[in-house]
Amino acid sequence: MTELWRDPTAPVEARVADLVDRMTVEEKVAQLGSIWWLDPDAGGMAPMLSESVGPMPPWDEVVADGLGQLTRTFGTAPLEPLEGMRILAQRQRDVMAGNRFGIPAQAHEEVLTGLAVWGATIYPAPLSWAASFDPELVERMAAQIAGSMRRLGIHQGLAPVLDVVRDHRWGRVEETMGEDPFLVGLVGSAYVRGLEQGGTVATLKHFLGYSASRAARNLAPVSIGPRELADVILPPFEMALRAGARSVMNSYTDLDGLPVAADPRLLSGLLRDQLGFAGTVTADYFSIAFLQSLHGVAGSLGEAASLALEAGIDVELPTVNAYGAPLLAAIADGVVDEKIIDRALSRVLAQKCELGLLDPGWAPLEPAEVDLDDRESRAVALELARRSVVLLANDGSLPLAAGATVAVVGPRADTPEAMLGCYSFPMHVLVHHPEAEAGVEVRTVREVLAETFDVTYALGCPVLGGEEADIEAAVAVAADAEVCVVVLGDQAGLFGKGTSGEGCDVADLDLPGRQEELLEALLATGTPVVAVLLVGRPYDLSRQVDRLAGLVCGFFPGEEGAQAVADVLSGRVNPSGRLPVSFPGAGSTQPSTYLAPALGRRNEVSVVDPTPLFGFGHGLSYATATWTAVTSSAPTWATDGTCELVVRLVNEADRDVSEVVQVYLHDRSASVVRPVQQLVGAARVDLAPGQQAQVCLSLSADLTSFTGRDLLRIVEPGEVELWVGASSTDVREVLPLELVGATRVVGVDRVLEPVVTVELT
Amino acid sequence: MTELWRDPTAPVEARVADLVDRMTVEEKVAQLGSIWWLDPDAGGMAPMLSESVGPMPPWDEVVADGLGQLTRTFGTAPLEPLEGMRILAQRQRDVMAGNRFGIPAQAHEEVLTGLAVWGATIYPAPLSWAASFDPELVERMAAQIAGSMRRLGIHQGLAPVLDVVRDHRWGRVEETMGEDPFLVGLVGSAYVRGLEQGGTVATLKHFLGYSASRAARNLAPVSIGPRELADVILPPFEMALRAGARSVMNSYTDLDGLPVAADPRLLSGLLRDQLGFAGTVTADYFSIAFLQSLHGVAGSLGEAASLALEAGIDVELPTVNAYGAPLLAAIADGVVDEKIIDRALSRVLAQKCELGLLDPGWAPLEPAEVDLDDRESRAVALELARRSVVLLANDGSLPLAAGATVAVVGPRADTPEAMLGCYSFPMHVLVHHPEAEAGVEVRTVREVLAETFDVTYALGCPVLGGEEADIEAAVAVAADAEVCVVVLGDQAGLFGKGTSGEGCDVADLDLPGRQEELLEALLATGTPVVAVLLVGRPYDLSRQVDRLAGLVCGFFPGEEGAQAVADVLSGRVNPSGRLPVSFPGAGSTQPSTYLAPALGRRNEVSVVDPTPLFGFGHGLSYATATWTAVTSSAPTWATDGTCELVVRLVNEADRDVSEVVQVYLHDRSASVVRPVQQLVGAARVDLAPGQQAQVCLSLSADLTSFTGRDLLRIVEPGEVELWVGASSTDVREVLPLELVGATRVVGVDRVLEPVVTVELT
Repeated sequence: MTELWRDPTAPVEARVADLVDRMTVEEKVAQLGSIWWLDPDAGGMAPMLSESVGPMPPWDEVVADGLGQLTRTFGTAPLEPLEGMRILAQRQRDVMAGNRFGIPAQAHEEVLTGLAVWGATIYPAPLSWAASFDPELVERMAAQIAGSMRRLGIHQGLAPVLDVVRDHRWGRVEETMGEDPFLVGLVGSAYVRGLEQGGTVATLKHFLGYSASRAARNLAPVSIGPRELADVILPPFEMALRAGARSVMNSYTDLDGLPVAADPRLLSGLLRDQLGFAGTVTADYFSIAFLQSLHGVAGSLGEAASLALEAGIDVELPTVNAYGAPLLAAIADGVVDEKIIDRALSRVLAQKCELGLLDPGWAPLEPAEVDLDDRESRAVALELARRSVVLLANDGSLPLAAGATVAVVGPRADTPEAMLGCYSFPMHVLVHHPEAEAGVEVRTVREVLAETFDVTYALGCPVLGGEEADIEAAVAVAADAEVCVVVLGDQAGLFGKGTSGEGCDVADLDLPGRQEELLEALLATGTPVVAVLLVGRPYDLSRQVDRLAGLVCGFFPGEEGAQAVADVLSGRVNPSGRLPVSFPGAGSTQPSTYLAPALGRRNEVSVVDPTPLFGFGHGLSYATATWTAVTSSAPTWATDGTCELVVRLVNEADRDVSEVVQVYLHDRSASVVRPVQQLVGAARVDLAPGQQAQVCLSLSADLTSFTGRDLLRIVEPGEVELWVGASSTDVREVLPLELVGATRVVGVDRVLEPVVTVELT
Repeated sequence: MTELWRDPTAPVEARVADLVDRMTVEEKVAQLGSIWWLDPDAGGMAPMLSESVGPMPPWDEVVADGLGQLTRTFGTAPLEPLEGMRILAQRQRDVMAGNRFGIPAQAHEEVLTGLAVWGATIYPAPLSWAASFDPELVERMAAQIAGSMRRLGIHQGLAPVLDVVRDHRWGRVEETMGEDPFLVGLVGSAYVRGLEQGGTVATLKHFLGYSASRAARNLAPVSIGPRELADVILPPFEMALRAGARSVMNSYTDLDGLPVAADPRLLSGLLRDQLGFAGTVTADYFSIAFLQSLHGVAGSLGEAASLALEAGIDVELPTVNAYGAPLLAAIADGVVDEKIIDRALSRVLAQKCELGLLDPGWAPLEPAEVDLDDRESRAVALELARRSVVLLANDGSLPLAAGATVAVVGPRADTPEAMLGCYSFPMHVLVHHPEAEAGVEVRTVREVLAETFDVTYALGCPVLGGEEADIEAAVAVAADAEVCVVVLGDQAGLFGKGTSGEGCDVADLDLPGRQEELLEALLATGTPVVAVLLVGRPYDLSRQVDRLAGLVCGFFPGEEGAQAVADVLSGRVNPSGRLPVSFPGAGSTQPSTYLAPALGRRNEVSVVDPTPLFGFGHGLSYATATWTAVTSSAPTWATDGTCELVVRLVNEADRDVSEVVQVYLHDRSASVVRPVQQLVGAARVDLAPGQQAQVCLSLSADLTSFTGRDLLRIVEPGEVELWVGASSTDVREVLPLELVGATRVVGVDRVLEPVVTVELT
C-alpha cells in the first residue's frame, strides 16, 4: 500500500502529517534549510558573504537527510539556461537520492526586475511599475516572469518588495513601489497575482518595517509605534496576501528594539493568527545569524535558531548557519522543542506538496534550450517602460523638434547599465564576472536617439568623480547643438558598488558626484537643456528646474528603457508615468514623504520647509484629457456604506492620451492625527482621440478607516473630503462628504481598494 | 469661625477640598487659566502669537472670577525690576479683589538660561550645564535663579528642558542637556533641586518625546515605540521628579499619531499612576488650542479643552483660548464633567496652598530695588562657563603664546549676542525692542582677548550672508598676525530669527551661511587658525579639523562666556568641559546620536558611516590626571546587587586639573537590542598639583536594567562590561562582569544613579 504522504488524491494536511511522523529529527531540520553553491573564486555579492555562507560542505553530506531549498542555482553566475537546467536537474536528483523519501528541494531565485538569470528579460525596476499606475500591465509582466521560472524548474521568486518608502536616502528605494501604501499594495498585489497564477510562489518582503530605519541606513534600528505600523507599513501586505502570496520574508531590522526575526507577535500573531496567512515564512538572507552577530539578542547560533523558529521563521535562507548543526545541537540539548520544528516543517512540506514535489513520479525538468528574453517579454518590458517614464517639467521644448541636432551627454547617456536596477542580473551578479556579456540586448539613450536625430555625444563625467576636461568637452558639444539632452543618474549596485541599491544609502539627495556641476556647466552654454534622470531615488533638482527646457525621469526602466525614454523625448509616446515618490524641494530634509499630517508639512512652527519640488503622483503629458465632471453619489457616506464617485473625461486632443485619475482622502478632524491626504483610489484611463470615459470608483467607507486611540481600526463619522485630481498637488475637484452613522470597528477583512470601472464611449 | 481653606494649620488636602466645594463653575475654570498681558505694538514672539493670544479682554472681566496664573509679567518687555514688581503687585491686588476668595494668581516666568527678566544674570545655556558634568555647580546656579524669582514674587519657572537629543538638526538642541538620558537626568535634577529648594516651582518639559520629531522639524510627528520612550526619553523625568519638581509641561508633538496633550496614558497613567507625580501639569503655550488647529484631533476649542482636561492637563498657558469660554460652554452643554474640572482644580489649588497663596494675610511683595545680576550670580555664571567650554582639538598652539599678535575675526568675535541662548531675555524678548539695552554686561571674545593680547579684528562675514570683501579683509588681518582666532557659530532666535533656537531647525549640519568659506579662506593664509565655536548645536568641522591649530566650543556660554573662552584660549583656565552631543563626522547623517546599537553605527551593511568626528563625552585639557587604577569589587554582579567601582587618579602636572570620569555600560547580548554603550555614571574630580583621588562609584544592578520583550523593565543576567574612561571614545579600562542571579523585574523605584564618593588625598 502506498504511504499516505505520497498519495496525490489525499488532502495536503493529511499527507504532511503522515510525512512529519515518518521523519527523524535530522530529516526534519534538513527541510528547513537551504544550500547556496558558491564558486569560492566568484567574490562576494554581499558583505560578509563568504564568511557567512562558510565553506561548502561535502555535497553528499548536504543531501544526506534531504534539503529544503536550493538557493539561486541559476542566479549566482552567468549560466546558459540549458546549462543551468542541467545543474539543477542533477542537484535535484542528488537531493532526491540522498533522502529516504526522495523529496526534491524547492528552488528559489531573485525576481525583482524579472528573473535574475543570465539572458532573461530585465524589466523596469519596481519604482517604474508604480510610476505606471498600471496594475494590469504589472500583472502581465509577472505572468511572463512566472512562465520563465516554470520553464526552468524554479518554484519560488523572492519578490515583491512591499516596503513603503519613508526616507528617500535609503538605498533600496529603487526596489520599492514608492511612498504610498495603497499604490504599493495595488501594484504589488498585481505582481503577486501574476506570479502566483503562473504557478510560482511569490515572496512578500520585508515583513515588517524595513524601510523606516534610522537615517535610512540599511538595517539600522527602526523607531516606530503600532499605529504607524498598522496604517502605513502593513496595508500593502494585506492586499498582497489577498492576492494569493504563499511566502513572506522577514525584515532585517529591529522595531523599537526587537528584531523582527525574533518577534512572534509579528511573524505569528499578526501574520498568521490575525491575517490568516498559511504559507511559509522564509528568512531574509543571513538574518537568523544576524540575531547573534548584528542584533546581539542571541548568545549563539543555536539560540538564534531557537528565537527565529519560535517567532515563526520556517525556512532559513540562503544556507544553514543556524537551522543546521546549531539547531540540531539545540534540539539535542532540549533547548528547542521538536514541536516547534514540526510547525515549521509542516508549512514547508505543505508548500512542497502544493507544488507537486511530494507526488510520485515527480522528476526534474529535462534540460532544454529556452529563450528567456522572447519577443513577448521584450514587448511587455517596452510597454511598461513607456508607461512609467515621467515627464516632470517641460517649457515646451519637448517633444524634440524633428530633425534637431541633439547633443547627448552625461554619465548615463551611453551605457546600458543606466537602465538596470540593483537586482538585475548584470548589476547583481555580473559585476563579479567582468568578462561576461550582459546576456540581453540593452541599448542606450544615445543609440536610440541617434536613429531619429542628428546626435553628438560626450560623457561629461562619470556617475562619481571625473575630470574637468570631460566636463569642458561636454560643454563644447552642447554649445554646438540646437538642444542638449543630458542623461544623469545612478549606478545600481550592492554595498558600495553603486549609488543606489542595497547598502548604497546616501547622506543627502544631491545628484551623485559632479553631475550637478556638469548640469550647471551645460545650462551656462545657453543651449536648451533637457535633463533625463535614470535613477533609483528622487534627487534635488530644485536649483536647476527653472532653467531646464525639460525634465524626464525613468526609474531604472529596464532593457527597453532607452527606447521608452527616446519615445518620450521624440514624442512618439505621450508620456503618462506618475511619480510614486516625491522629489525634494529646496531646503527640504529627510525623512519626509507626502504622507504627512499638517505638522509634517510646511507650517509656521519650523523654518524647514518639506514641500516637494514635484509631489507624489505628479507627471505631465504632451496632451491630456479634459475633465468634464467629478461627482459623488450623495453628500453623505454611511460609515458602513459606499460612496460612488464618477469622473468623466474626454480626449479632445488629436493623439492618444492616458490619464491617471487619483483620489485622495482628506480627514481634517479625527480622534488621532491623520495625514493631510492619502491615496485611496486610482485609475489609469487610455483614450483615443475623441473618446470619452466614465470612471466609476465605488469606495467602501472602510477606505477611510484608521487605527484609533485604542489601536482598533475604525471608521469614524465626521466630515471628510475626497480630493480628486491628476496628482496629489493637482486636485481638480474637492468633494465634501459627511461620514454618518456610528463609529465602526473594521476587521482584517476590511475592504482595501475601491471597485473601479471604466466605460469608454 | 475661619473657613477651613484659609486655615494654614489644616492639611492641604482638606483646605483644597473645602475651597473646591465653595466655588462656582466659573470660579473653578478661572483657576485653570492664565492671562498674558501683551503690548499689542510689541510684535509677536512666536508665530501666530497675536492671533493665538487674541485681543486682551477688559481686565475687570479677566479677574472677575479669579485667575490661575499670570504669564510672564516681567519677561515680556524690558522692565526695571522695581517697575515690574509694581505692575505685578497691582495685578495681584486686582486679581485678589476680583474674586470672592481673594486668591492671587501664580506667577510664572521663563528661566532656561537664568531668569528671563531684563537685567537678570544670563547663565550659560543648558548644553553648557551638561558640558560641565558638574551637577553641584548647576544646582548652585539654579539656587541663584530661585533667589531672584523669590525676590520678585515669581512662583514658577518654566525649566528645565529634559528632552534627550535625537537629531542635532532640531532648533531646540541648545535648550537641552544633550543626547544621553543619564547626563540629562543628572544635570537636570540638580537644576530642579536648586529651583525647588529655593522655594520655587520647577517645570519639567517636555513630557514626552518632543525631541524625536520627524527630520527634527519643530512639532513634527514623532515615530516612536514604547521601549525607546521608556529607555531613552523617560529616565531624565524620573530623576527630576525624584528631585522634587512640582510641575510638568506636556510635549507639543504627537507620538505615533496621538498628541501628548490629549493622551491620558502618558499624562495620567504614566506620570501620575505609575510615577506618583502629584503636582500640576501645565500646558505648553497654546498646545491645547493646537489640538484643534494643528493636530486636527479636536473639532472645536471646547473639544480641545475637554481632551486636554481628560488627558490630565491642569493649567492652560499662556492664556485661555480653550480653558476659558470654550470650556465653560462645553461644561454647560454637558460635554465636560465637572468632576474632571475639580481634579485639575484641586491640583492647582494644592500648589497655590503650598506656595502660601491661600494663607490669610498673603500680600504681594513690596516693590523694591533688586539687583538681579549681583556679584555672586556673575561668579556662578563665570564658573559654569569656564567649566563648560570644551577644547575639542589642539595641535599644541593652545594656549596662545603670551604676547602673541592675534587676529580675532569672525561673525561671533565681537558681539555679545554670540554668548546668549534663545531663551535669554535679549534674544527672546529684546529682539522686539531694538531700542533697549541688553540689561546686563556681556563682553565679547575680542574685548576680553584684547586685555591680554595684541589684537586685530575683522568681521569676515555675518552669521548668514555677507560680502566677499569682508572675507578678504579678514584674510588680510589674519595674514598679518601670528595666530588667528576665528569665532564662528549661531545666532540664537525664535522662529526664523536665528540659526538656532525654537523653530530654527536646519536642513544639515554645515556651518550657517558663508562661515565655512571664511574658515577655508583663513586656513589658506598659512597663519595658524584656532576656531572658536559659539553654537547651539554641533556642526560639521570634519573638512577642516586636520588643518586647525585648535578648536574650542562653547554652547551659548552666557554673560561671562567671553571671559571663559578667553581664559581657555590664554591658558588661565585648564579646559575641562566635555561634549554632551556628538560632533558629526564626514558623510554622517541625521538622526544619529552616540546612543545606538551596533546597527546604528558604522558597519558593513550600509555605506553611510555615522561615526562622529568627536564623540559624546570628548574634551581635551592642557594637563590631565594620570589614571593609576580602575578596579571593580568582584568579577560578578548580582542582578539584585551592587558593583563597587574604584578609579584612582593622580595629578602629576604642575597645575590644577579637572577630570571627568565616565562609566559606560556595554551589554553585548540581551533579550532586546541594546546600545553599544550607555553612560551609567560620571564624576568630575578637581585635583591640585600632586593631589590624588579615589573615586568610588557604587553601581546598583538596576543601572543595567532595560525594557524587555514584555515591556517590563528588567535586570537580566549575563555578561556585561563597564567601559571606564575619559569619554565615550577614550575608554581607559574595560571591566568584564557577569550579572548573576535571576532575571529581576524592577519597578519605578529603581535606582537611577550610582552613589559616587570622591576621596582626595
